[in-house]
Amino acid sequence: MARKLRRALKVVTKTFEDEFHHQPGTLPGTIIIDADAPAPIIFLIDYNQTNFTREQIATPEECIPYLEMETISWVDVQGLGSQDILQRLGRVFDLHPLVLEDVVNVPERPKTEDYEDQLLFIARMVVPKERTCGFYSEQVSLILGKNYLLTVQEEPEHDCFEPVRSRIEKAKGIIRSQKADYLTYALLDAIIDGYFPVLELYGERIEELEEEVIVKPTPQTLQSIYQIRRELLQLRRAIWPQRDAINSLIRDGSDLISEDVRIYLRDCYDHTVQVMDMVETYRELASGLMDVYLSAVSNKMNEIMKVLTVVSSIFIPLTFVAGIYGMNFNTEKSPYNMPELNWYWGYPMCLGIMVAIALCLLLFFWRRGWLQNSVPTKRN
Amino acid sequence: MARKLRRALKVVTKTFEDEFHHQPGTLPGTIIIDADAPAPIIFLIDYNQTNFTREQIATPEECIPYLEMETISWVDVQGLGSQDILQRLGRVFDLHPLVLEDVVNVPERPKTEDYEDQLLFIARMVVPKERTCGFYSEQVSLILGKNYLLTVQEEPEHDCFEPVRSRIEKAKGIIRSQKADYLTYALLDAIIDGYFPVLELYGERIEELEEEVIVKPTPQTLQSIYQIRRELLQLRRAIWPQRDAINSLIRDGSDLISEDVRIYLRDCYDHTVQVMDMVETYRELASGLMDVYLSAVSNKMNEIMKVLTVVSSIFIPLTFVAGIYGMNFNTEKSPYNMPELNWYWGYPMCLGIMVAIALCLLLFFWRRGWLQNSVPTKRN
Amino acid sequence: MARKLRRALKVVTKTFEDEFHHQPGTLPGTIIIDADAPAPIIFLIDYNQTNFTREQIATPEECIPYLEMETISWVDVQGLGSQDILQRLGRVFDLHPLVLEDVVNVPERPKTEDYEDQLLFIARMVVPKERTCGFYSEQVSLILGKNYLLTVQEEPEHDCFEPVRSRIEKAKGIIRSQKADYLTYALLDAIIDGYFPVLELYGERIEELEEEVIVKPTPQTLQSIYQIRRELLQLRRAIWPQRDAINSLIRDGSDLISEDVRIYLRDCYDHTVQVMDMVETYRELASGLMDVYLSAVSNKMNEIMKVLTVVSSIFIPLTFVAGIYGMNFNTEKSPYNMPELNWYWGYPMCLGIMVAIALCLLLFFWRRGWLQNSVPTKRN
Amino acid sequence: MARKLRRALKVVTKTFEDEFHHQPGTLPGTIIIDADAPAPIIFLIDYNQTNFTREQIATPEECIPYLEMETISWVDVQGLGSQDILQRLGRVFDLHPLVLEDVVNVPERPKTEDYEDQLLFIARMVVPKERTCGFYSEQVSLILGKNYLLTVQEEPEHDCFEPVRSRIEKAKGIIRSQKADYLTYALLDAIIDGYFPVLELYGERIEELEEEVIVKPTPQTLQSIYQIRRELLQLRRAIWPQRDAINSLIRDGSDLISEDVRIYLRDCYDHTVQVMDMVETYRELASGLMDVYLSAVSNKMNEIMKVLTVVSSIFIPLTFVAGIYGMNFNTEKSPYNMPELNWYWGYPMCLGIMVAIALCLLLFFWRRGWLQNSVPTKRN
Amino acid sequence: MARKLRRALKVVTKTFEDEFHHQPGTLPGTIIIDADAPAPIIFLIDYNQTNFTREQIATPEECIPYLEMETISWVDVQGLGSQDILQRLGRVFDLHPLVLEDVVNVPERPKTEDYEDQLLFIARMVVPKERTCGFYSEQVSLILGKNYLLTVQEEPEHDCFEPVRSRIEKAKGIIRSQKADYLTYALLDAIIDGYFPVLELYGERIEELEEEVIVKPTPQTLQSIYQIRRELLQLRRAIWPQRDAINSLIRDGSDLISEDVRIYLRDCYDHTVQVMDMVETYRELASGLMDVYLSAVSNKMNEIMKVLTVVSSIFIPLTFVAGIYGMNFNTEKSPYNMPELNWYWGYPMCLGIMVAIALCLLLFFWRRGWLQNSVPTKRN
Repeated sequence: MARKLRRALKVVTKTFEDEFHHQPGTLPGTIIIDADAPAPIIFLIDYNQTNFTREQIATPEECIPYLEMETISWVDVQGLGSQDILQRLGRVFDLHPLVLEDVVNVPERPKTEDYEDQLLFIARMVVPKERTCGFYSEQVSLILGKNYLLTVQEEPEHDCFEPVRSRIEKAKGIIRSQKADYLTYALLDAIIDGYFPVLELYGERIEELEEEVIVKPTPQTLQSIYQIRRELLQLRRAIWPQRDAINSLIRDGSDLISEDVRIYLRDCYDHTVQVMDMVETYRELASGLMDVYLSAVSNKMNEIMKVLTVVSSIFIPLTFVAGIYGMNFNTEKSPYNMPELNWYWGYPMCLGIMVAIALCLLLFFWRRGWLQNSVPTKRN
Repeated sequence: MARKLRRALKVVTKTFEDEFHHQPGTLPGTIIIDADAPAPIIFLIDYNQTNFTREQIATPEECIPYLEMETISWVDVQGLGSQDILQRLGRVFDLHPLVLEDVVNVPERPKTEDYEDQLLFIARMVVPKERTCGFYSEQVSLILGKNYLLTVQEEPEHDCFEPVRSRIEKAKGIIRSQKADYLTYALLDAIIDGYFPVLELYGERIEELEEEVIVKPTPQTLQSIYQIRRELLQLRRAIWPQRDAINSLIRDGSDLISEDVRIYLRDCYDHTVQVMDMVETYRELASGLMDVYLSAVSNKMNEIMKVLTVVSSIFIPLTFVAGIYGMNFNTEKSPYNMPELNWYWGYPMCLGIMVAIALCLLLFFWRRGWLQNSVPTKRN
Repeated sequence: MARKLRRALKVVTKTFEDEFHHQPGTLPGTIIIDADAPAPIIFLIDYNQTNFTREQIATPEECIPYLEMETISWVDVQGLGSQDILQRLGRVFDLHPLVLEDVVNVPERPKTEDYEDQLLFIARMVVPKERTCGFYSEQVSLILGKNYLLTVQEEPEHDCFEPVRSRIEKAKGIIRSQKADYLTYALLDAIIDGYFPVLELYGERIEELEEEVIVKPTPQTLQSIYQIRRELLQLRRAIWPQRDAINSLIRDGSDLISEDVRIYLRDCYDHTVQVMDMVETYRELASGLMDVYLSAVSNKMNEIMKVLTVVSSIFIPLTFVAGIYGMNFNTEKSPYNMPELNWYWGYPMCLGIMVAIALCLLLFFWRRGWLQNSVPTKRN
Repeated sequence: MARKLRRALKVVTKTFEDEFHHQPGTLPGTIIIDADAPAPIIFLIDYNQTNFTREQIATPEECIPYLEMETISWVDVQGLGSQDILQRLGRVFDLHPLVLEDVVNVPERPKTEDYEDQLLFIARMVVPKERTCGFYSEQVSLILGKNYLLTVQEEPEHDCFEPVRSRIEKAKGIIRSQKADYLTYALLDAIIDGYFPVLELYGERIEELEEEVIVKPTPQTLQSIYQIRRELLQLRRAIWPQRDAINSLIRDGSDLISEDVRIYLRDCYDHTVQVMDMVETYRELASGLMDVYLSAVSNKMNEIMKVLTVVSSIFIPLTFVAGIYGMNFNTEKSPYNMPELNWYWGYPMCLGIMVAIALCLLLFFWRRGWLQNSVPTKRN
Repeated sequence: MARKLRRALKVVTKTFEDEFHHQPGTLPGTIIIDADAPAPIIFLIDYNQTNFTREQIATPEECIPYLEMETISWVDVQGLGSQDILQRLGRVFDLHPLVLEDVVNVPERPKTEDYEDQLLFIARMVVPKERTCGFYSEQVSLILGKNYLLTVQEEPEHDCFEPVRSRIEKAKGIIRSQKADYLTYALLDAIIDGYFPVLELYGERIEELEEEVIVKPTPQTLQSIYQIRRELLQLRRAIWPQRDAINSLIRDGSDLISEDVRIYLRDCYDHTVQVMDMVETYRELASGLMDVYLSAVSNKMNEIMKVLTVVSSIFIPLTFVAGIYGMNFNTEKSPYNMPELNWYWGYPMCLGIMVAIALCLLLFFWRRGWLQNSVPTKRN
C-alpha cells in the first residue's frame, strides 16, 4: 500500500519538482530549453470582419506577411522545446530579451509588463484532470501588439482556447469586429473561467471528505485532506498574482487597450476575485476538516478505551473473586480457613456475588453513558 | 444514522453544488438558463406622491408606458427560468450585455457597476429557515435608472421586500415623495437588515453548543460546530463584498444618487459593517468552540482512563496474591513449601493483606484526586 | 453542577441575546422601544464660568430656555423606555431622523457622524461588575451642538460620569471656562478610562488561570478560559470602532471642535490605542492558555497511563508465574510434570523468581523516569 | 513546588499588575504619584565643544541658569516619587499639562508628540536581568527643546545611558560638537541597542528549550515556553509603537531636528525594525515549540502505551493457558476431562505452547516496530 | 543519540548565536571586529568594452589609480577581520561612518540607502550546503559609486558571483558595454537566483517528510519538521526586506541607476517575489505537516490501543471462566457445589464456552473494523 501512496505523492508533488531551473548567475535573457519540453507547434489565425484564415505554420517567419496586413493575427505557439525557433520568434516579433526569458523560462509568476509598443501578460492556465481530483497547470504568455497577439503555451495538450477559436471561425458574437485587445480579453476570460470546473472538483471532494471524516476517518482521509490543502495552495499561488496583473492591465494599461475592452476586463477581474474567494473558502474548509479529523480520531480512541475499560473493569474484579476461591488454604487445619468451600450453598453464593458485582459495574457504566455507541459506524 | 447525516450534509452543501455553471470560453454576455430555474414572474409598482399602481404583468413590454411617465416605476422580476423574457427585458431596459450576464448567471459576487445612465448593484439576500438554524440565500440585482428601478430575484419565494411594498402602498414615511434612488436605498436596507435574524439564530445555536460542548460532547457536537463554521463562512463571503459595493455606491456613485440618499446609504453601510463584525465574532467563537471540544474529549478520555487505572491497579495486585495461594506446591515435602496454607489464621491473614493493599492504593488514588468525578455528567 | 454552569452561561451570553432587534424592512428613522427598557430620566447641568445649575427635569421641553442662553447646557437622558419623550427630545434638539434611530435602536456600532450643525458620537461604556470578573456594557450617544451637549444612556445605573459632574460643580480644572467641545472630550475620556479597571480584572483573572492551568487543570478551567476569550472578543468589538470614531473626530471634525480640544482628543486617542493593545495582548495570552491547557491535560493522561502501565506490567507477569504453579498436572504420572511442586525449596525459589522479575521491571521503569512524579499536585 | 511556581509567576506577571492606575474621569493633566515610586534624583550635564559640567542638583530651579546659556543642557530626572518636584519641573521647562501627565502617569504607550517648541518622545527602555532570562523595563520620556534635553526615567536603577555620558565627558566622537537633537538620537540609539542583549537571552533560552522539548519534555518545559511567549508579547508591545514613533520623528519632525540627525535616526529606525523582526521570529519559534511539545507528549504516551500493550498482550494469553490447566475438572469421571493433566509430557508440552505463543506475539510486535525504543531517553 | 541530536541542533542554531554583537550605547559608526572573522582579501576587476584586468590586491590604496580612470572598477572585499584595512577602505571610497558601520557590523537587515553620490545596498546571500538540507548565509554589501562598485562579503568562501566574473572576463552578453549599475544588477540577480537551489532542497526535503510522516512518523520526523520551519523562517527574514530594498532601488533610486537597468531590476524584483511566494508556500506546507504529524501519532496510538483492547477483551473474560473452574468448592458437600467438575462432558463444554465467547468478541471487533490494519507499516 505504501508503494501506491508513494506513487500518488509523486503525482502530486511533480508540479513542485519541475518548478525551478534558474541557474544562479546566468546571463539575463538566457533561454534554457528543458530536455523533455515538447517541440513547438505554431498555429496562425488571421481574421477581420470579412476574412478568416486558420493554418498551422512551420517557421515563425511565415507570420511576417500576416503581421504586415491590417487584419488581426493570432499566433499561437504550443511547446517550448526548440531554442532556435524561439529565438527566431523573438526576432520576428521584435521581443525584448527579458520578455523572451520570461516566456520561455517557466514557471514565471503571473504579471503584466508594459514594453512601449507591446504588452506582456503572463498567465497560468489550469485544466481539470479526468476522473480524479486534480488539474494540469501550464503557463501561457500573451504578447499583445498593435494588430497581433502572440500566445506561447508550455505544451500542446490541455488548452481551453477552443471555444474562442470556434467563435472567431463562426463569427459568433462581436469578436470578428473587434481588435486584438478584445481577443486578449477573450482568452484571459477563457483562462479564468477555466478555474471554475477545477474548483468544482475540489468542492465535491471536500464534501466527500466531510462525510468520510465524521463517519469513518482513516489515515487515507488525513492524507487526502493534506493533499487538497496542498493543491489549493498551488491554485492560490496561481490566482493571486493573476488578479494583480489584470488589475494593472485595467488601470495602467497602455494605449493598446481600448476603453470598451476595459469594461470587459473589469468583468474578468470580478471573476478572478470570485475564484480567489472560492479558493480561500475551500482552504478554510480544508483546514477546518483537519481539526475535525483530529477530533474524530480522539473520539475513536475514546470508543476503544471505553470498550477496554468496561470489559477490564468488569472481569478483573470477577477474576479476583474466582482467584480467592482457588486458593488452597487447608480447611482442615482451622474453621477459619475458607469455610465457604465446604458450605452447602457455597458455589451458588459465589456466583451470585459475581453477578451482583457485574451488575453494579454495568449500572455505573450505563449511567456514565459508556455503554451507548456514540461513534457512527460504517454499517448503518 | 449515517444516512441521516448524509442527508443533513446534502442540505448544507447544496449551496456549494449549485455554485458554478460558468462554461470556460463562452461568449461574454451569454445567458445560461438553469434547467430547474423557476419561470419569471413580473410585478410592477408605479407611484408618485399622489398615485399608486401595483400589478402583475405578463410581458416585459407592458412596462414601457410606465417607464415613459415621470412617476417612479419599480419592476420586480422573480425567477430566471426563461431566456426569451430575460432578453426582452434587456431590450426594454436597454441593458448592456454584461449587465444581463451578471444578472442572470448567478451567483455573481456582490458589486456595484456604473454604466453611464444605469447603476447595477448585485446583492445577496438571506432569509432564515423556519425551525432549523440555516438560511435561504438568493441573488438580487438592482438596476437603477433615471426614474425606474429594475430588480431581478433568483426565485419568487423568500423575499424580504414586503415591508417596503406596504410602505409605498400605505404612503408611510417619506418614500412616496422620493425618487428611485431612495427606493434603492430602502431595498438595500431591507436586504442588510435581513441578515440580523439569521445571525440571531447562529448566536442562539452557538450558545446551545457552548453548553453541549462542556456538559456532553458527542461527535454530533463536533459536526454541528463544523457546520456552523461552514455556514458563517458563506455569510462572510456574501457580506464582505456587499460592504465594498455599498461603499463605492456612496463614494463614486453617479448622478443617479442624490446627496440626501447618500446620508441614508451611510447608515446602511454602518449596518453592513455591524453584520460583518458579528459574523467575524461568531466565527471566532465557533473556532474557539472547536478547541474547547478537543479539550473536552481529552478530558473525557482522562476520566475513562482513571476508571480503568483505578480498577485495574487495585484488583490486579489482589489477584496476584490470590494466585500465590492457589499454587500447588507440595506442603508435605518441605516446611518451606507454602506453610501459610496450613496455618490456623492463614486465610484471614491473607484476606487482611488484600484489604490493606486495596486501602493503600485507594489512599494513593484519593490523594491524586482521581476518585473525584471531575467531568460534569448529564444528570445533575 | 451543570445547572450552575447553565446559569453562569446565561449571564455571559445575555449581551448577545439582547443584541438584535432590527426588523428587516422597517422605515428608516423608526424608533423601536424595547419592552423592558427603563423609563427615561432627564438631568440638566447648565454652567458657565460663574453660574452653575444642576437639576432633574420632567419633560424635554424644559431644556429650551437653557438652550437659548449662551451658557453650556449638558442634557443627560438615562433610559430609553418612552417613545413619546424620545420623539419630543428629537424635536427640541432638532435631530435628524437617522440620529434618533441610531441613538435609540441600541446596539449601534461606535462611530462619529457629522450633521452640519450637530456632531453625533456613539460610544460604548463599560463598568466593571463587583466581586466577579465581568462588566456591564451600555451605549452612550453624545450629540454635540453649538453650546449644548445631549447625552443619551441606555439605562440609569452604572455610569462613569460622576467625576466629571463633580469637576463641573466644584469648578476644578479648566472645565468651567471651556465650551461644550471640552465637555465632550471630558466625557469621552471618562468612557475610555473606564476600560482600564475592567481590563485590570481580566489581567488578574488570567494570572489566576495561568497558575490553575499548570497546577490543577479541570474542565472548569477550560470553561473559564473560553469565557474570558469570549468577553475579550466583546471588548474588542467595542473598542476598535471607538478608535476609528475618535480618530475621525480629530481629523475630519467640524467647526464644533476647537484646535485646543483636538490636542486633548489626541491624548484620548492614545489611551484608546493603549486599551486596544491590552485587549489584544490578553487575547493572545488567553489563546496561549488554551494550548497550555490541552498540553496539561495530555500530561495528566500520561501520568495516569504511567501508573496503569507500571502496576499492570509488574503484576501481570507475576500472576502468570503464580498461575503456572497453580496448574494441576499430575506429578505422579511423570517426572516431567511440574517436579518443582515437590522440590524442597520449590516455593521459596518461586517467590524469589517473582521478586527478581519485579525488581527488573522496577529498574526498567525507574531508568525511563516513570516512577518520578512529574505533575505538580495540589498539595505541596 | 507549586509555591515556587507561584512565586515565579508573581515576578513574571508583576509588570502587568503595575500597569494601570488610570482613574476613570480624573482631570486631564492630573499627576498621580505612586506610593512606592522612588524619590526623584536630578542630574545635569551641560556641555559645548569646549566646556563640560556634570553635577547632581537638588531642585529643578537650579537648571535655569544653564538653560539660559547657549550650551547644550541635559537634565536627567530619575524617579517619579514627588509631586512637588515634578510640578516645579513642569514650570521650569514650561511643559504642557498633557506632557506632564504622559511623563508621570506610567506606563504610557511609546509615541512622538510635537508641541510647537518642544518635542516629546516616550520610549520604553529594557535592561536584561542578571543570571536569569528576563528584563527590567522602564519608561523614559525625552523632551527636546531648543538647546536642552529633559529626560525623565521611572527609577534610578538600570539605565543604559552611561556610555553616552562617558562619550560626552571624554569628547569621544562628534557628540560635543552637535546640538541637543544629536544627543536625543544618541540616547534613543542606546535605548534600541539595549533590546539586543535581552533578545540574545531569549535566543539562548529558546535553544535550550528546543533540546529539552525533544529530549525530555516536562510540565516545567511547557511553563517555560508559555512564559517566553508572554514576555516576548511584552517586548512586542514595547517595540512596535517605538518604531512608529521614530518613523514620525524622521518624517514629520519639527525644526528641532536637523537633516543630518535625521540620517542618523534612519539608522536607528533600521535597528528598531531589526528588533521587531527578531521578536516576531522568536515568537514564531516559541509558538512552534508549543506544537512540538504537544507532539512530544503524545509520543511519550505512545511509548508508555506500547510497553503496557506488549507486556499485557503477551502475559494475559499465557495466564489464560495457565488458568485452563488450573481448573479442577475431575479426570476420573471421564476421559474427556482434562486428560492432558495425566499425560507423560503434559507439563513440558504446556510450557512449550506458552513459549510458542510468546514468540509469535513478540514477532508480531517486532514487525510493527514496537519493541524498538524510539523516544530519546535522558541517559544516552 | 541525544548527543548527536545536540550536535545537530548546534549547527542549526549557530546562525542565531552569531547574530548580535551590538553593544548598547556605542558610538555610531563604531567598527567592531569579531575575534574569529577571517582577514579580508581584496580582489579588483577593472574593465571597459575593450580592456579587462583582474587581480588580487594587498591594500585598499592600490585601488585609487583604477578609481580615477573612466573604466568600471569592481572592488570585492571578502572577510571582515581587520579594523585597519576596513577603515582605510572607508577613506579610499569616502564612506559615511554609518555606511561603514552597516557594512561591518553584520548582520544588518537588507536595505537600500541613498547617500548623495553613493548607493548602499545590503543583501543576504545564501549558498546551499552539500549533501544536507541547509544553507550557508552571509551578508554582502554593495556600494555603488559613479564608475565603481565596492562589494564587501562576510567571508571568502561560498560566493555565487563566479558566473558574473566569468561573463565579464569572457565578455559574454552586454555586461562589458554597460556601466557599474548594470554590474550591480547582475550581482543582485545572482544573489536572488542563489535562493532557488536552496529552496529546491527544501522542496525535496518536504516531499520526503510528507511520505515519512504518513508511513512511519518518529520523533526524528517531528524534529526535522521543526528544523525546516525554523530555517524557512530565517530565509523569510532574509528575503522580505530584500524585496523592499530592490523595490526602493527601482522607485526612488538616485541618478546612479539608469532607466534601462531599472527594467532589468524589475525582473529581479519579480524573482524576489517568486522566492517569497515559495518560502511562504513551503512554510504553509511545513506547518500543515505538523498537523499531519500530530494526527498520525494519534492514529498510531489508536492502533496500539486497538491491539491492547482486542487482546485484553478477549482473554480477560476467558481467564475469568478458567478461574471459576479453578475454584476449590467442595463438590462432596453439596450437589450445588460445582457439579460441572464431575460431569462427563464438563471440560469439553467449558472449552466450547470459551471458544464461543472468543468468537463473539472477535465478531464484535471485526464489525467495528478494529481487526483490519489501517496504519501503513514500513514493510509493504
